Amino acid sequence: MIIVLKSDVTQNQIDHITEKIKSLGLTPMISKGVEKSIIGVIGEEDILRSQPLEVFPGIEKVIPILAPYKLVSREFKSEDTVIDIKGVCIGGKKVVNIAGPCAVESYEQLKSIAEAIKKAGSVVLRGGAFKPRTSPYSFQGLGEEGLKILRRVGDELNMVIVTEIMDARDLVLIEKYADIIQIGARNMQNFTLLREVGLSKKPVLLKRGISATIKEFLMAAEYILSGGNFQVMLCERGIRTFETETRFTLDINAISVIKQKSHLPVIVDPSHGTGKWNLVAAAARASIAAGADGLMIEVHNSPEDASSDGEQSLVPEKYIELVQTLRSVAKAVGRDL
Amino acid sequence: MIIVLKSDVTQNQIDHITEKIKSLGLTPMISKGVEKSIIGVIGEEDILRSQPLEVFPGIEKVIPILAPYKLVSREFKSEDTVIDIKGVCIGGKKVVNIAGPCAVESYEQLKSIAEAIKKAGSVVLRGGAFKPRTSPYSFQGLGEEGLKILRRVGDELNMVIVTEIMDARDLVLIEKYADIIQIGARNMQNFTLLREVGLSKKPVLLKRGISATIKEFLMAAEYILSGGNFQVMLCERGIRTFETETRFTLDINAISVIKQKSHLPVIVDPSHGTGKWNLVAAAARASIAAGADGLMIEVHNSPEDASSDGEQSLVPEKYIELVQTLRSVAKAVGRDL
Amino acid sequence: MIIVLKSDVTQNQIDHITEKIKSLGLTPMISKGVEKSIIGVIGEEDILRSQPLEVFPGIEKVIPILAPYKLVSREFKSEDTVIDIKGVCIGGKKVVNIAGPCAVESYEQLKSIAEAIKKAGSVVLRGGAFKPRTSPYSFQGLGEEGLKILRRVGDELNMVIVTEIMDARDLVLIEKYADIIQIGARNMQNFTLLREVGLSKKPVLLKRGISATIKEFLMAAEYILSGGNFQVMLCERGIRTFETETRFTLDINAISVIKQKSHLPVIVDPSHGTGKWNLVAAAARASIAAGADGLMIEVHNSPEDASSDGEQSLVPEKYIELVQTLRSVAKAVGRDL
Amino acid sequence: MIIVLKSDVTQNQIDHITEKIKSLGLTPMISKGVEKSIIGVIGEEDILRSQPLEVFPGIEKVIPILAPYKLVSREFKSEDTVIDIKGVCIGGKKVVNIAGPCAVESYEQLKSIAEAIKKAGSVVLRGGAFKPRTSPYSFQGLGEEGLKILRRVGDELNMVIVTEIMDARDLVLIEKYADIIQIGARNMQNFTLLREVGLSKKPVLLKRGISATIKEFLMAAEYILSGGNFQVMLCERGIRTFETETRFTLDINAISVIKQKSHLPVIVDPSHGTGKWNLVAAAARASIAAGADGLMIEVHNSPEDASSDGEQSLVPEKYIELVQTLRSVAKAVGRDL
Repeated sequence: MIIVLKSDVTQNQIDHITEKIKSLGLTPMISKGVEKSIIGVIGEEDILRSQPLEVFPGIEKVIPILAPYKLVSREFKSEDTVIDIKGVCIGGKKVVNIAGPCAVESYEQLKSIAEAIKKAGSVVLRGGAFKPRTSPYSFQGLGEEGLKILRRVGDELNMVIVTEIMDARDLVLIEKYADIIQIGARNMQNFTLLREVGLSKKPVLLKRGISATIKEFLMAAEYILSGGNFQVMLCERGIRTFETETRFTLDINAISVIKQKSHLPVIVDPSHGTGKWNLVAAAARASIAAGADGLMIEVHNSPEDASSDGEQSLVPEKYIELVQTLRSVAKAVGRDL
Repeated sequence: MIIVLKSDVTQNQIDHITEKIKSLGLTPMISKGVEKSIIGVIGEEDILRSQPLEVFPGIEKVIPILAPYKLVSREFKSEDTVIDIKGVCIGGKKVVNIAGPCAVESYEQLKSIAEAIKKAGSVVLRGGAFKPRTSPYSFQGLGEEGLKILRRVGDELNMVIVTEIMDARDLVLIEKYADIIQIGARNMQNFTLLREVGLSKKPVLLKRGISATIKEFLMAAEYILSGGNFQVMLCERGIRTFETETRFTLDINAISVIKQKSHLPVIVDPSHGTGKWNLVAAAARASIAAGADGLMIEVHNSPEDASSDGEQSLVPEKYIELVQTLRSVAKAVGRDL
Repeated sequence: MIIVLKSDVTQNQIDHITEKIKSLGLTPMISKGVEKSIIGVIGEEDILRSQPLEVFPGIEKVIPILAPYKLVSREFKSEDTVIDIKGVCIGGKKVVNIAGPCAVESYEQLKSIAEAIKKAGSVVLRGGAFKPRTSPYSFQGLGEEGLKILRRVGDELNMVIVTEIMDARDLVLIEKYADIIQIGARNMQNFTLLREVGLSKKPVLLKRGISATIKEFLMAAEYILSGGNFQVMLCERGIRTFETETRFTLDINAISVIKQKSHLPVIVDPSHGTGKWNLVAAAARASIAAGADGLMIEVHNSPEDASSDGEQSLVPEKYIELVQTLRSVAKAVGRDL
Repeated sequence: MIIVLKSDVTQNQIDHITEKIKSLGLTPMISKGVEKSIIGVIGEEDILRSQPLEVFPGIEKVIPILAPYKLVSREFKSEDTVIDIKGVCIGGKKVVNIAGPCAVESYEQLKSIAEAIKKAGSVVLRGGAFKPRTSPYSFQGLGEEGLKILRRVGDELNMVIVTEIMDARDLVLIEKYADIIQIGARNMQNFTLLREVGLSKKPVLLKRGISATIKEFLMAAEYILSGGNFQVMLCERGIRTFETETRFTLDINAISVIKQKSHLPVIVDPSHGTGKWNLVAAAARASIAAGADGLMIEVHNSPEDASSDGEQSLVPEKYIELVQTLRSVAKAVGRDL
């Protein structure tokens, strides 16, 4: 931690600050510069992090040196985390495609979509049973009925199942049916929920909040790891910017930044990251080229009739076609798919 | 709803679209322009809103005409909503000051702060018992113990109490102690929570998400009103932008925009809206000048020792001084305080 | 300057870095922390600022301690700068209203608007002769003819004239007619133009770029001051954010931040800062309450026929009415108007 | 153009609006909806675009139907524009790599870098002679001397030369030396400059402003095409967002959006789009996978000594290595490189 002092700081103020630092068991090191002086603090930075140092008279600003996350960092664990879910490995050499409809609508719908996805070679099926919707008047998902359909289709086709949790009270229910628990972008800082899934034995797919910095994203994951659950996948799904041509701005840089800072696998959701089906393929190709460990793509057999997100869903034929290209791109960057 | 057709749309595609519209009980009106044709749809717009029209071949874009919210709108209720909480009216001519520490730390701390606030003429006390914190390693609040302290101080000083709910499971508990239930920025789209407080009899103070548009903010309030709870206050607390000198960018324009579009009272939180105690006074004055119905300000008797948000808290003397000026500003714009 | 080293930095890398620092005449001070080591550099920070230190092996990040601007800073000059233009003082106790049409359209138009503005007590007249327009097909201003009209009306009503420069080649022309030279938001980082007006004897009103940080804004002003022209006013006019209800998000916090960091006067443009005439009054009141030294407001006698920015212009009667309220708000915060 | 009327619009107001529309030679079509009425306007939309309709009493909002740009649109010209510069084709099947140092520093520096670039198979050389710098105290480029070096190295190695123009007064000079004229992000809305290069015979590489929407970017290009110069390349180089881990957020979606809307070639600058040399390779691969027609990459033989942008420059060996991978990615998406 570096504390930059004001030009007109007094000796009394400096004493007051250094006493505080010492009272916390840390060592202050004063360094007088040409224009400004600074205090470097030696010791466990976290102790100081939660102190409101900015309010001490004479302090201009406080600059942390260390990242606030520990368990998710590369420095804590240098090799890539690979999560094995019933034999499907996420985070290894093989890029994984997660696909499926936004919402589970019926057994027939899901079965038909899942068969197409499997034909393309993908073995992880997504589908929402509890749907977060901007409007209280929109379709909110089938609830447990949806979970049952998911599980049934998953079992019939031998696919791994991922679905979203919206309420901590549903955890037991969702754990019963799902293989991977998804936390949506709107709940990325629902700390209650993060703590609960941190206690779960199931892998978690955590989506980035639409205005979360990468640092906040990693801190949200830290909540889960600090609870004991190290099986976390981080999902970039677009951030909110001033641009209105697309629903969100897919932060392609985030993939490499996260891979440098963390050992956790990175998944990209090009469906939400663009918001338009005819932009999904390009974003998917780009994500693999940039180093993503997996993709999460919305596929619907009849987007015109989809109960949600139809405008960003691919029809099965387009998906199958896309996977061909993705395979070539993966190979070009030294991965399999 | 206006549907803009592509330049090269075919008659078959137009027929397919108009059939869909008719099947929903709506009336399509085609209008051929010089360069593009459009279809205007007559009837209940909400029916069409959830249809993924963008995926129909031949459609370039879909433009909604009506706002997606109903109950929160000025068109639904033209006069201002005034919420009466034990005689304290929010939304009327009198501007209301809500103040208190970020987190309840002890009875002594809260009592001392509350006395100073009351001396300044403010009668609504805020204080957190459950704290949403970016880091899992930070102080998370006193829980029910904090609620008890809040209630005790509130009763002793005859003040109205507001505190944040983070988990739907805590609703009964919080209803027992608080007069106003706060939903924080991170939970603005925690739809589960919104639905639950919509069923409560207690007034709700809903904070704007840091990257929520005004439309999304109003839709979040719509969730609560649609559950039957019309006692909602909307709190602008700064949005996330590229500027890093301040913690957030206080959206001063939002006050007038919301007052034009909705009948609900608007509160401003200049403490989070700036993130620095020495910017709070200016932002507070500006908010009242812009038409806010109330302010929510963090006050701490010893910011240097605050367990959270010390850097944006005012000491009691500064708060008392500020209220004097706010009173003059309120008068200048035809309000009382 | 603080240089944070990587955890796995080698002694060779440290030697390479410290040699570089010494070769620039600066002194490196190494400080070993528990988890990371840092190098503090003593000496003129600007020498190091332009060095690409991030590319040196072993360096994790580089943290500057000092602000990059000098002449515009409060540390360089602690008292407020007051600019006297023919007896009109900007930056003193009196808040100044600048008003007028977006574009000069004709003598009759400008004279009529100017008379109304003067009636309201304002003595600084704005009007564009060269207009930056998003579309090449829009009205681009009357050019020198517009400047002549501005000067004539200014002289007839004894008003100070401000107009925008878009091209360095027009400087002599604009200096001939205008009292204050405006640099628009789009040209805030047109460094050629900044250098040229830095050599002028005329005061400059510099608008903030729509995505410029406050630091970049102050650096743009530094260009002008470093050329010798210290008569610079800084104009906050809204920044670009994700919110679409308003044309821009007026950064009300920026007023106080700039007043803390710089001695230059701050003007606010609530017309561009909102983009809608019916939001201008609230934003204008808020700006004065927050400490602005002046306002710049678009006024048009017939907004329906305005050649540009009609949607954000006030009619003269509304402007006169607004100035009344602004006077009360100014008084409430200890200023005159 | 669709005009949405307020719920409480009067017949008088409607008459006033329709008269205005008719007076412009257009035809209003009123359509009464259940909750709101609208007026569709038939005829040349551009006539109405510059009218401030929002100020007419009774109008709630105005919704344009057509894009404001013409010449740059796919509807104006459906096939891709291919620009041939001395035999180097940009916009065709072959992806083009533009590379070189941020600033020309000396003949030796440039020659050495250019030789490495050519060895990698790239034939377009970039280098700045006039540099836009945030600080007035930073290196501003060698000026004409830099142009001469560029031309000399270009001629010696038979490479095409691109360099930035910052001032309209330098156009003749730059045309004399350069093959492609670059307009930087800060000047994207320097309309004076856009008009001037619109009259030039040289191809133009136009960079996107850091907070320009895609629509504004295309409008800036429209300025150039409307002057008669159709040889324009559009360069995505990252936009400003709230994320601070990277210098800018590369808008990978913009590539596909622009290719859908416009016939002009799209170049991506991953050096500025990330701001960190160790993120450049991933962003470059992603850009080609997403459909870019070319890349622009900063290469420096000794980034530690670079006079600007060293932190985002690749050393020649890294560049040569990167081009190998890019070739595979290009092939995977059906392109050559």
